[in-house]
Amino acid sequence: MKPKRERIAFQGERGAFSEEAARKLLGPDVAVLPCARFEDVFRRLKEGKVTGAVVPIENTLAGSVHENYDHLQHFDLPIVAETSVRIVHSLIVRKDVKFSALRRVFSHPVALNQCLDFFAQNPQIERTPFYDTAGSVKMIVEEGLRDSGAIASRVAAEIYGARILRKSIEDVRQNFTRFFLLRRRKDAGLLPNSVAADAPWKTSLVFTTRDAPGALFRALAAFALRDLSLAKIESRPLRGKPWEYLFYLDFRGRVDSPPAQNALRHLAELADWMRVLGSYPQGA
Amino acid sequence: MKPKRERIAFQGERGAFSEEAARKLLGPDVAVLPCARFEDVFRRLKEGKVTGAVVPIENTLAGSVHENYDHLQHFDLPIVAETSVRIVHSLIVRKDVKFSALRRVFSHPVALNQCLDFFAQNPQIERTPFYDTAGSVKMIVEEGLRDSGAIASRVAAEIYGARILRKSIEDVRQNFTRFFLLRRRKDAGLLPNSVAADAPWKTSLVFTTRDAPGALFRALAAFALRDLSLAKIESRPLRGKPWEYLFYLDFRGRVDSPPAQNALRHLAELADWMRVLGSYPQGA
Repeated sequence: MKPKRERIAFQGERGAFSEEAARKLLGPDVAVLPCARFEDVFRRLKEGKVTGAVVPIENTLAGSVHENYDHLQHFDLPIVAETSVRIVHSLIVRKDVKFSALRRVFSHPVALNQCLDFFAQNPQIERTPFYDTAGSVKMIVEEGLRDSGAIASRVAAEIYGARILRKSIEDVRQNFTRFFLLRRRKDAGLLPNSVAADAPWKTSLVFTTRDAPGALFRALAAFALRDLSLAKIESRPLRGKPWEYLFYLDFRGRVDSPPAQNALRHLAELADWMRVLGSYPQGA
Repeated sequence: MKPKRERIAFQGERGAFSEEAARKLLGPDVAVLPCARFEDVFRRLKEGKVTGAVVPIENTLAGSVHENYDHLQHFDLPIVAETSVRIVHSLIVRKDVKFSALRRVFSHPVALNQCLDFFAQNPQIERTPFYDTAGSVKMIVEEGLRDSGAIASRVAAEIYGARILRKSIEDVRQNFTRFFLLRRRKDAGLLPNSVAADAPWKTSLVFTTRDAPGALFRALAAFALRDLSLAKIESRPLRGKPWEYLFYLDFRGRVDSPPAQNALRHLAELADWMRVLGSYPQGA
C-alpha cells in the first residue's frame, strides 16, 4: 500500500543535494519539506508531517555525518532505502546573464573551495561566501543580480528558473554523498519504486564494546562465521568514556534471514549494547 | 637535536583552530605559515619550507577528513604527534564595541550553524556567512565595523587584537577535532616538548583488502593474536572499485616493538597493500 502522497523532509533550501537524492529515490515529482536543521528533519517525520526523510550519512571526501548517526539512534526511524549522489557543482546565473558579465560568484564556502581551479582560471570573478548552495541561486534570481552567479546543483537551477552556464566545475569528480531514506516504523515496508526487485540487501547497525584487546575481533567473528561480508565498519570514540567505542557496521544481507539473525544473536552476547538501524535494498 | 626554530604550516587564516593545535603541541611562540589548501600544507613541508605541519584528521561531529588521509598516503610525511582541541566558538568584536550595538555576526556557515541557540536568543543579530572563522575576525577589525561581531577561536581574538564578548556560544560542547603533527622523515625523531615522557604510543596505518566475507576479520587477527588493542578502525569504499576497501587503523603500541612488528608482518600476508603513516605518543 502506498501512502496517499509522498512528502519528504530534508535539511537545506529547495534544490539542495538532499532534494536530488529524494528525486532519485522517489521520482521527479516528489513533494518536499525543507528544514533548517537535521534534528528538525527527524522530528517532522516522527510527528507524521511527512511520509519520509532523506538525510546524508557519509561523503567520500568529508567522512561520516556523525550527527545523523546520533539522530538515527535517538529517533527510532528505520532506514528503508539508500542512494548515492555525485556532488556536481554547476555555475548558475539568471536567464539573461552572460559569462562575460560575471564579477562575483556566491555559494557555500565548502562548495567554493571545491571549485578552486575554476576561480584560478577566472581571476576576474570574486568568490563570495553565502549561506547555502541552493540558497545562493534563489538569492541571485530574487535580487535580480546581473553581474553575479551561484554554484549549486542542477536541481537548484531548475527550481529557481535559472540557467546553467557551466556544468561540473568542481576540482575533484570523485565526490559522492550517500543518503538514507527513513520512514516511520509502521511504514517501513513501503519501498520506493526506484528499488530493483532483485537488489541485494544491506543491514546497518550500531553497537558498543568495552575496549579490550580483541574485543572488535570477537564481535566481527559473529559475521565472519556466517560468511556475511561487511560493507562498512567505523569506530567512534565515546567522549568522556575514553576506553569505550561505538561502532557503525553495515553487512550484506537481510536482517530477517537466518544467517543474519544468528549473527545478531551472537553479537548481542559480545556487545554491551546494539541497535539495528534498518535493513534495505542496496542503492544505486 | 632541535631544528633551529619551529615553523609550522597549517590550512586557514592566522587564528584558525589548527593554529590552536600547533600552539598546544609546540608552545605559544611557535611561528606559523598559513596556507590556502591542505595540499599546500603538505607541499610546503615536503619542500622544507617549514619544520612541521599540523592537519585535522577527524572531528567528533563531522567524521574523518578523508582528504588528509589521501595526502598522508601520497606525501610520505610521517605523523610524529597528535592532539585534540575542543572547538570553542567565541563571540568576538573590536575592542570598543558593546553587545547592545551588535546587528550582524560574521563567520563560516559551519560555525554559525553550530551556534543556533545563541541566534535564537538574540533575534536582533543577523547571521552573516563569511569565508573563514578567523578571517571574519580579521575583517571586522580591519574594516572597523562597529555594529558587527565574528565567531572564531580565542586565538583569533588575540592575534587580531580583538575582544571576546561571549565565550563558548556553541550549542554542543562535545565538539573535538583531532590533529596530527607531521615532519619530514629525516626529522621524525624530533618530538615536541608537550609530549609526556611516559605517554603510551599509538601507530596509524592504512591497508586494503579484497572484499571477501571475513577478510577484515582475518586482518584484525594480526592484532588480536598479539593483544594489541585498536584505537580506531574505519573502512572507506574505493570508488570505481566497488568491492574493494581501504581501511584506516590505529593500534596502541610503538611500531618498533616486537608485537607490533609481528602483527605488521602478519597483516602484510593478508592485505593487498599497506602503509604505516606514523608511530607517536598518544596526545592529550
